[in-house]
Amino acid sequence: MKKQYQSDITGYKAAGFIGNYQELVRGTVIPYQYDVLCDKAGTEKSHVIDNFRNAAKALRGEDTGDGFYGMVFQDSDAAKWLEAAAYSLAVKPDKKLEELADELIALIASAQDKDGYINTYYTVKDREKRWTNLLEGHELYCSGHLMEAGAAYYEATGKRELLDVCLKNAEHIYERFVKNGTEGYPGHPEVELALMKLYRASGEERCLELAKHFIDVRGVDPDYYRKECERRNWSVWGANANDGTYQQSNMPVRRMNDATGHAVRAVYLYTAMADLAGELGDKELAEACGRLWDSITSRRMYVTGGIGSTVHGEAFSTDYDLPSDTAYSETCAAIGLMFFASRMLELNPDSRFADVMEQAFYNTVLSGMSLDGKSFFYVNPLESIPGISGISPTHRHCVPVRPGWYTCACCPPNVARTIMSFGKYAYGENEDTAFCHLYAAGSVKLNNGISFDCETRYPFDSKVSYSIISGGRIAFRIPHWSRSTPISVNGKPISAETVNGYAYLEVSDGDEVTLDLDCEPRFVYASQKVPSLSGKLCLCKGPLVYCFEGVDNGGDVFDLRLSPDTKITETRAEGLDGIPALEMQAEREKDDGSLYSFNEPERQKCTAKAVPYFCRANREETAMRVWLPRI
Amino acid sequence: MKKQYQSDITGYKAAGFIGNYQELVRGTVIPYQYDVLCDKAGTEKSHVIDNFRNAAKALRGEDTGDGFYGMVFQDSDAAKWLEAAAYSLAVKPDKKLEELADELIALIASAQDKDGYINTYYTVKDREKRWTNLLEGHELYCSGHLMEAGAAYYEATGKRELLDVCLKNAEHIYERFVKNGTEGYPGHPEVELALMKLYRASGEERCLELAKHFIDVRGVDPDYYRKECERRNWSVWGANANDGTYQQSNMPVRRMNDATGHAVRAVYLYTAMADLAGELGDKELAEACGRLWDSITSRRMYVTGGIGSTVHGEAFSTDYDLPSDTAYSETCAAIGLMFFASRMLELNPDSRFADVMEQAFYNTVLSGMSLDGKSFFYVNPLESIPGISGISPTHRHCVPVRPGWYTCACCPPNVARTIMSFGKYAYGENEDTAFCHLYAAGSVKLNNGISFDCETRYPFDSKVSYSIISGGRIAFRIPHWSRSTPISVNGKPISAETVNGYAYLEVSDGDEVTLDLDCEPRFVYASQKVPSLSGKLCLCKGPLVYCFEGVDNGGDVFDLRLSPDTKITETRAEGLDGIPALEMQAEREKDDGSLYSFNEPERQKCTAKAVPYFCRANREETAMRVWLPRI
Repeated sequence: MKKQYQSDITGYKAAGFIGNYQELVRGTVIPYQYDVLCDKAGTEKSHVIDNFRNAAKALRGEDTGDGFYGMVFQDSDAAKWLEAAAYSLAVKPDKKLEELADELIALIASAQDKDGYINTYYTVKDREKRWTNLLEGHELYCSGHLMEAGAAYYEATGKRELLDVCLKNAEHIYERFVKNGTEGYPGHPEVELALMKLYRASGEERCLELAKHFIDVRGVDPDYYRKECERRNWSVWGANANDGTYQQSNMPVRRMNDATGHAVRAVYLYTAMADLAGELGDKELAEACGRLWDSITSRRMYVTGGIGSTVHGEAFSTDYDLPSDTAYSETCAAIGLMFFASRMLELNPDSRFADVMEQAFYNTVLSGMSLDGKSFFYVNPLESIPGISGISPTHRHCVPVRPGWYTCACCPPNVARTIMSFGKYAYGENEDTAFCHLYAAGSVKLNNGISFDCETRYPFDSKVSYSIISGGRIAFRIPHWSRSTPISVNGKPISAETVNGYAYLEVSDGDEVTLDLDCEPRFVYASQKVPSLSGKLCLCKGPLVYCFEGVDNGGDVFDLRLSPDTKITETRAEGLDGIPALEMQAEREKDDGSLYSFNEPERQKCTAKAVPYFCRANREETAMRVWLPRI
Repeated sequence: MKKQYQSDITGYKAAGFIGNYQELVRGTVIPYQYDVLCDKAGTEKSHVIDNFRNAAKALRGEDTGDGFYGMVFQDSDAAKWLEAAAYSLAVKPDKKLEELADELIALIASAQDKDGYINTYYTVKDREKRWTNLLEGHELYCSGHLMEAGAAYYEATGKRELLDVCLKNAEHIYERFVKNGTEGYPGHPEVELALMKLYRASGEERCLELAKHFIDVRGVDPDYYRKECERRNWSVWGANANDGTYQQSNMPVRRMNDATGHAVRAVYLYTAMADLAGELGDKELAEACGRLWDSITSRRMYVTGGIGSTVHGEAFSTDYDLPSDTAYSETCAAIGLMFFASRMLELNPDSRFADVMEQAFYNTVLSGMSLDGKSFFYVNPLESIPGISGISPTHRHCVPVRPGWYTCACCPPNVARTIMSFGKYAYGENEDTAFCHLYAAGSVKLNNGISFDCETRYPFDSKVSYSIISGGRIAFRIPHWSRSTPISVNGKPISAETVNGYAYLEVSDGDEVTLDLDCEPRFVYASQKVPSLSGKLCLCKGPLVYCFEGVDNGGDVFDLRLSPDTKITETRAEGLDGIPALEMQAEREKDDGSLYSFNEPERQKCTAKAVPYFCRANREETAMRVWLPRI
């Protein structure tokens, strides 16, 4: 089969559920985020725009004003905003937004050194420190985010200025690490996947070569960071240079078996590995990706598609260590898992990759943002306990209420760009086939000529209808959770050839294709190897994981017990914009009030209500639980 | 009722279960511990004896040889050994042991400064630093342990040398903090409870006054440690001087409501508070003790009597935060809870104090030492998960196998002294009554003239028989877990007046009193407010909590499910010196091997075996679980 790629940014105009989310990001998140960049948002100052202004002054030999402020990776906030803005412009033209973006791009260009170097931290603070601290310095990380923005802005608007800044920057990096053979590789992988995007947008072979270089050299000298640390006399936050497992540098990537270390770094790295493996037909690399995929999805992933279970280093833990109440499960890590899944799909269109991509999106990624787009979670536990969550030393990271914005603002813009580029994950193509990986209402127009409209209330309804505008071969994903998925063409049931979870159909202009997924509520059970989940069950419906919140259940949810045989009906929950909830018979255990008692708790029948996990914590502060003890 | 006190050290000669444990400590632990002090044990060197030797040299103006080595509180290891040795001599004379102890005491005396100061860290390293760092410096802590040893050695042998060293040291501390009005109070409470012992052994009123002083001034200036920290220019390990909740200095002790901070420090402090409250008839202090007792036992204690649930600072967490698998539950903290319980009992002979004292002893304290007395646990989780416990970042402290000895060797000698002085916890007295708080085979001879022998296989058997040698009024504790406790005198059932869980009997010389406790195996349920235990049950029998180990259950215990209606029979477990185990019908859930599955796991009937928690981890490395999901 020919290699399949993500659809173009401009290839999907969203409607329905995704359309609404994109409107929220366009109307609320992107403008707010811009105000943050300019220190106009009334939040803690970010100084992002000022940093670029001061860097430009430094390059011109002028006084750098109030200098640099913020994290060492502060520049990436501008890049992430530009990337989200680019996707937004691709989806819906907006003159004012485009002007703001063009202005910011001009400012960024003015902060680029003659040799192509660009990073305000080093340009403003200390140019001598450039490239001396790859472990913590984030220069390659910031370059990577700029490259993603440059590629996206060029695709969306056809404007080359940022793309050219990025190409010049890539050339500078290439000179240093490939041509001059300087040792080292990024402490926070990101530039590798970004170089692949820059390569595709520009056709510049050196981008591909540079991405491959960083993948190839990583971990070959597992002591690189230790040596680097010994050479330099400064540190950003004193990262441990000897923890190769944490920074994915303990062995060459092609030998890796387990997903380890900082979860975002890990999946960003694996994304680039899978992308390169596909681009170059590198079987060894593809096999390593397969093993890492299995490590994550068979042993180290929450049912919500969340990864990186421990707060200690925002990292993967050991196999089956998946605590609900102390979960880290960072929003950005789930986004990174979507990236990885999307590249795995390109390597091999198999529904298990799309299933996980969807699981991560509809649960952990969307959980990262409130329904009004104004507050955000970094951390996505599967249980929130009033009096313990956010308070106890082991639960301090699990705040029960979404804060407005963070100093380290990685998750909010990451959610924004993911929602705005949803089409790239939902639809793929190769020369002769359109791939419908995710169900997403709206219009799709692919480069291979196939185009169609999709109508659906998914994920709240099971029916997905496609009106074919320009026909051809279309592969529809059949998710593993749908026990039967009748497909009809023009009202007539058909039986389609299904390969690796994709139903392949030849359709003609004007055809109406309808899929009826099995979205009946179902219970999920965890492996006995996850001790924290033994004897428990979790309620799902289609791609959605449900949770029980105190606010819908008379305050308490920890005394609820569920039978797998209970009948579940659809209902509404107060204050959730009409998002469907589920209602069922359950039991409550009433104890005698003592900490420990010989009295078997009495069981009382009750009605329990569950809401989709992604809309948790949108009302008052309340208890929340995903996995309930089973009766 | 007249105030009740612990029995004298010499008042109880143990037999049976406790007798065997005392033999183990006498024969194995105390000699081994002495070798550690002298660096002869083949473990990491402790340098304890050498520190005293070098301190003596420093005082004589000689070269201090190889200087000081070890923790700032290294001296306390010598004191704890001496205290255990004293109890051992009280129980069974041993010339060689007494000689070693006398020698060590002479060495310690030679390391005391003319002004009464004694601490090798400061004497050897830097005398200028004396008393400048009460927060971390541990001078008062080490003095306290020496005072406990001094009082014990005097009681056991009648020899005054160490007692006089301690009194001179107490006088030095009194001068500084009371007479000269120097600000400050101990960062690690201990000296307060020790001063109370020294006061009782010596009759020296200033010891009582000094203990009261430290209790009275504590937290009155909650900023004391911050100011101290600002004044000094050195630190032991950079403790946070602003965390008053952690060091129990955020408010005057009489206002405290919640047990907070470092668990050992907390209960050592509460012990002294309760002791003082009784001694002085201080109602306000007694009420604070009552609130702190409730805070611990109704909201912050494991079913094993373990306290201090979080590894972060070895501390109390918030209410109901009692995770099984990441529990800290330090052995020393359970010992401290026994101290506190014992003083609460003296304030008010109520069986709920003795019940908790027993719960802590038979479960967490004994769990701290292997059955052969050669290896020790600091940390006592209620679940041990192969591949996660001891490995994952959140479970690193929960090592699954007892190490031989620790650099920070607090728990092993603490277990040793507690076992050797068991009689002080088991038996109490006032002028006209003998109190049997715990059931313990052996001979008892109290100061009030009452004496008796006790015969029992407790905790493995329910029958406890007392042969009265010299009669009077005896109060027998009736534990809350014993649903009915028939008492007979000379074979005839009697009905005794029972007040606050104590049955009061007038007995005559030659009487035979028999209690038949209800030690049937029973299930315990936790409050719904402990989310990690919802839907689970725990098997108990008398004072013993049971656990399920992989080694008795075909490897895995996390797939086991238990019905509260299952019939439980007594059996044996392999390799546990004949300690009775329990056997019952259970079910195993067999899953389909995937991390998450829609397939309800199949249930298979099986036989499950449980062993007392205290003898966990005495065989091969294995899975262990106390709380099992209920069916």
